[in-house]
Amino acid sequence: MPVITVHGPKMSKEQKAELVKSFTEIASKIMNIPAQAFTILIEEMERENVGVGGVLLADREK
Amino acid sequence: MPVITVHGPKMSKEQKAELVKSFTEIASKIMNIPAQAFTILIEEMERENVGVGGVLLADREK
Amino acid sequence: MPVITVHGPKMSKEQKAELVKSFTEIASKIMNIPAQAFTILIEEMERENVGVGGVLLADREK
Amino acid sequence: MPVITVHGPKMSKEQKAELVKSFTEIASKIMNIPAQAFTILIEEMERENVGVGGVLLADREK
Amino acid sequence: MPVITVHGPKMSKEQKAELVKSFTEIASKIMNIPAQAFTILIEEMERENVGVGGVLLADREK
Amino acid sequence: MPVITVHGPKMSKEQKAELVKSFTEIASKIMNIPAQAFTILIEEMERENVGVGGVLLADREK
Repeated sequence: MPVITVHGPKMSKEQKAELVKSFTEIASKIMNIPAQAFTILIEEMERENVGVGGVLLADREK
Repeated sequence: MPVITVHGPKMSKEQKAELVKSFTEIASKIMNIPAQAFTILIEEMERENVGVGGVLLADREK
Repeated sequence: MPVITVHGPKMSKEQKAELVKSFTEIASKIMNIPAQAFTILIEEMERENVGVGGVLLADREK
Repeated sequence: MPVITVHGPKMSKEQKAELVKSFTEIASKIMNIPAQAFTILIEEMERENVGVGGVLLADREK
Repeated sequence: MPVITVHGPKMSKEQKAELVKSFTEIASKIMNIPAQAFTILIEEMERENVGVGGVLLADREK
Repeated sequence: MPVITVHGPKMSKEQKAELVKSFTEIASKIMNIPAQAFTILIEEMERENVGVGGVLLADREK
């Protein structure tokens, strides 16, 4: 522990690597817990599988 | 916030749009929070990745 | 399955009962799955434990 | 309820069936709840979508 | 990784310790991953915060 | 969307505010999504409700 789960858009491997690195550094410092204890799970969501304000993101472009 | 996560079966885009619309309307009314504040995440689960009563859904058809 | 998780505000028992009833009816109809199969998990979040736009909800009232 | 969510590696159908069976048996006994009440959700994670100690699992093989 | 999240009833510390021990042993063997890599998160749910079949567990005793 | 869920230790309000601020800034930059779109959910876990390597954190101090 801690476990950080990110539900977000499709990302490149480089973006994910940077996100994992930066999140772990910041959270490790704030929580005063060694970086090694952190697990980060990235769930890339299709725009058709996310709704905001009652509308699918995939339908927002129309 | 609020965030509503739905782990369910494969659905068509129309089903997802309807689910997002209806859930947001109902929850907005019950919680007295503007629809715009709601995020809904849909996780479509393979039948092979869900167990009920100790058996995979994919094995229940046998 | 399906499992619906709601991260939202504190609610009264009546609000939760209504939310569970309505969500199950709607989702059961849309997904064509019997109501009995639905599990709904309600996670009531303290305003101090939710951030939107980089600010804790608890700090937004200031 | 209960709902058990497993974020883990790719697994074969046999591994998933065994995991669901064993988890349900053990948890049913420990919690004294009938096996039928248990839902298990398996989320197979790409190594590129998991970070441990600030590094993507996919980058750990280098 | 892996991360196993259990949404279930209130449990004693002994029950939780046994659940964590057994789940880790079983999953470690099935996934062929060292026990040390496993994180288990237990979310004890109030009966008023869980709905099954459209009814709160707390309302099922009536 | 995006939604970031943090399962971690008890934290002060100041720590949570800093975590929400920093995570949002970093993720907004990496994902190129406006900060306003980000929701962060913090779940503070009791040591008795977290297992690592098959042992409850609460039992690790012994």
